Amino acid sequence: MTKFSENIFKIRYAIRDLVPVAKAVERKGVKVIYLNIGDPLRYDFETPRHIIETMYKASLSGHNYYSDSQGIYELREALSEHLKSKYKLSVPPEHIIVTNGVAEGINFTIRLFTDPGDEILVPGPSYPAYISTPMMYHAVAKEYRCIPDEGFIPDVDDMRRKITPRTRLIMINTPNNPTGALYDQKILKDIMDLAAEFNIPVVSDEIYDRIILKGEYTPPYKFADDVLYIGLNGFSKQYLMTGWRLGYMYILDKSGDYVDRVVEGVLKQARSRLSPNTPAQYGAIAALKGGDKHLGELIRKVRKRTELFYKLVMETEGMDVHKPRATFYIFPRIDREIYGDDREFALNLLKNEGVYIVPGSGFGRYGAGHFRAVTLAPENLIEESFQRIWRYLRSVKSLSQKTGS
Amino acid sequence: MTKFSENIFKIRYAIRDLVPVAKAVERKGVKVIYLNIGDPLRYDFETPRHIIETMYKASLSGHNYYSDSQGIYELREALSEHLKSKYKLSVPPEHIIVTNGVAEGINFTIRLFTDPGDEILVPGPSYPAYISTPMMYHAVAKEYRCIPDEGFIPDVDDMRRKITPRTRLIMINTPNNPTGALYDQKILKDIMDLAAEFNIPVVSDEIYDRIILKGEYTPPYKFADDVLYIGLNGFSKQYLMTGWRLGYMYILDKSGDYVDRVVEGVLKQARSRLSPNTPAQYGAIAALKGGDKHLGELIRKVRKRTELFYKLVMETEGMDVHKPRATFYIFPRIDREIYGDDREFALNLLKNEGVYIVPGSGFGRYGAGHFRAVTLAPENLIEESFQRIWRYLRSVKSLSQKTGS
Repeated sequence: MTKFSENIFKIRYAIRDLVPVAKAVERKGVKVIYLNIGDPLRYDFETPRHIIETMYKASLSGHNYYSDSQGIYELREALSEHLKSKYKLSVPPEHIIVTNGVAEGINFTIRLFTDPGDEILVPGPSYPAYISTPMMYHAVAKEYRCIPDEGFIPDVDDMRRKITPRTRLIMINTPNNPTGALYDQKILKDIMDLAAEFNIPVVSDEIYDRIILKGEYTPPYKFADDVLYIGLNGFSKQYLMTGWRLGYMYILDKSGDYVDRVVEGVLKQARSRLSPNTPAQYGAIAALKGGDKHLGELIRKVRKRTELFYKLVMETEGMDVHKPRATFYIFPRIDREIYGDDREFALNLLKNEGVYIVPGSGFGRYGAGHFRAVTLAPENLIEESFQRIWRYLRSVKSLSQKTGS
Repeated sequence: MTKFSENIFKIRYAIRDLVPVAKAVERKGVKVIYLNIGDPLRYDFETPRHIIETMYKASLSGHNYYSDSQGIYELREALSEHLKSKYKLSVPPEHIIVTNGVAEGINFTIRLFTDPGDEILVPGPSYPAYISTPMMYHAVAKEYRCIPDEGFIPDVDDMRRKITPRTRLIMINTPNNPTGALYDQKILKDIMDLAAEFNIPVVSDEIYDRIILKGEYTPPYKFADDVLYIGLNGFSKQYLMTGWRLGYMYILDKSGDYVDRVVEGVLKQARSRLSPNTPAQYGAIAALKGGDKHLGELIRKVRKRTELFYKLVMETEGMDVHKPRATFYIFPRIDREIYGDDREFALNLLKNEGVYIVPGSGFGRYGAGHFRAVTLAPENLIEESFQRIWRYLRSVKSLSQKTGS
């Protein structure tokens, strides 16, 4: 009998859900402004040339075979040095696994730690894959509340309340997508103490760790002395290599009890997909060794654009937002009285004005009443977006006056 | 509590399991002959230059972003034309999904069709991922027997006996890894009739469809008029792009009932990993449009090497084999009286003589008593391997004479 796993069809990926609508709007001749995808390469940013050249040379000189499933050793060595020099963190190449982006790291980890019905604590609002990936493995994502009035800092009491005997992982994400929050030392220490108390491994998605706009990034592992800690990171954002799909995981466990077993459990899965893209891995070595000039420029631009976006949100009736301290996202709250439900707002704004933002409820229940926009677009496009948002605002207001509602 | 999904640790990937042993042998100064990995790029084959150049130019000109999760449209169009011109098969680009190798296609399919406890029929002997991937999703791979004395053609009666109400997919693989079998029309028709009778979708792994040494390849879809059919293929083998990790799936369903739902169910999963490698996808377009000169050369070499390997197997005491009709694998039977258990044989041959072949039981229970070797190595290496195998044979025989066993 032809039968599907119905779980799969419950998955929503709000960031791309409205693409068909956007295409239809474009066919009507409207230039859509895309503020939905966190990909600098869709705007005025480029992969640094030396990374491309190294990848090309590797491919030309025959590095096109299946590489080590764990990732080529030279890349893992370079990652080990990178973690040492940037964070004073000692991780041997043997405890690092190269992945097809952070997405694959999330997959490997969740699959390794859960059986059907097991639970994972994820931040709310949540990056969609934290919710959808457990569903694919018949596990359950439970969202812990992040406090909107405190800039979406996790509510550790809520986290504690949601721990059960089936909680297998605590997932954290600082700097945070979608909210732009940057967690400080106090909150990280509280989370790690909780994880240690219940002996629950922590998965830390650190993909935005170097896109800091204000303040300082605290790596969560600093408080993980008594915790099995799985760090996820990648080349996509900080090296402008999104479409190359390269990330990595590193495993920390001061007790020494679990690290070999985690590595082996990940490799058991990794071997069946053979290896990450081999030429791209050579490019990644060049990325790690080639300096951060591009990163300074990225941050300068994002900082200015975020400031502008923030200012325009605050000038807009029925919107407000905490100023993002990191990432290239902003997550404004919208007044339901004016804009309606966030899904409705996103759909109508796209249909009527051709501005593509992502509805907050696409990031789980705690995202409702917000929207996410990327702050990567050049200033003129951000300004144009708000011209359109304000025109939309005038139209809904005049409509509500006419209907008297 | 720190707890793992124990399923993961049951996974074996025999093709790479002995790598640590091989490394230890190398450290003793022995040159190991690797006959374990089906990767032409590890021998005297190279990715065609025009593919590399196109990938490089795409990257240089900015195609480094996250592409469409389904794969870039131009590539899917080229694949649609490829299926039309090579197989007279009509598949619109909308029914094609670009994947990170066939491995990801296997993952997407199994995850879409199974809930925990569901069953999948897979060939025995079986490519290891057909057994390990269901385990990762808490589904069960049931091996149907392929008949050794008939060149490892599926036993359709055994297949029928193993169908239960929980059978969700029938997996087939022609040309076959590890046996080198090429299924003829009769057997394919019988399999498809069975699938139609029970209304079970068929997954057809066609990665070796163009590595044909003798006879003609029959695409299984030819008999799939009444079957939901998922074809898996890729660029690794036929375009010598193993380490680029690019494959594709295509969905056929003449009834029209399921095709949209399968595509959507795959895309629900694909979106969370964003996209396959974007520059590599441009390279793949060049591969499809750039002619097959390299393929002729690959087949000529593999044909000669397979002949030689076959001849040497048949000259070896206690070994025999059906001559492979396709692929670059050979799967000889070994006499247990002489060589012992196949795992023992593989381990001892590697340890004592530095020849790395894969034990047959690494391909499931029906593989026991055999070994798999790749026939990609140049003739002198194949000859050298047999010099070593014969020396090993002499040593075990003199040992058994001494011990009188």
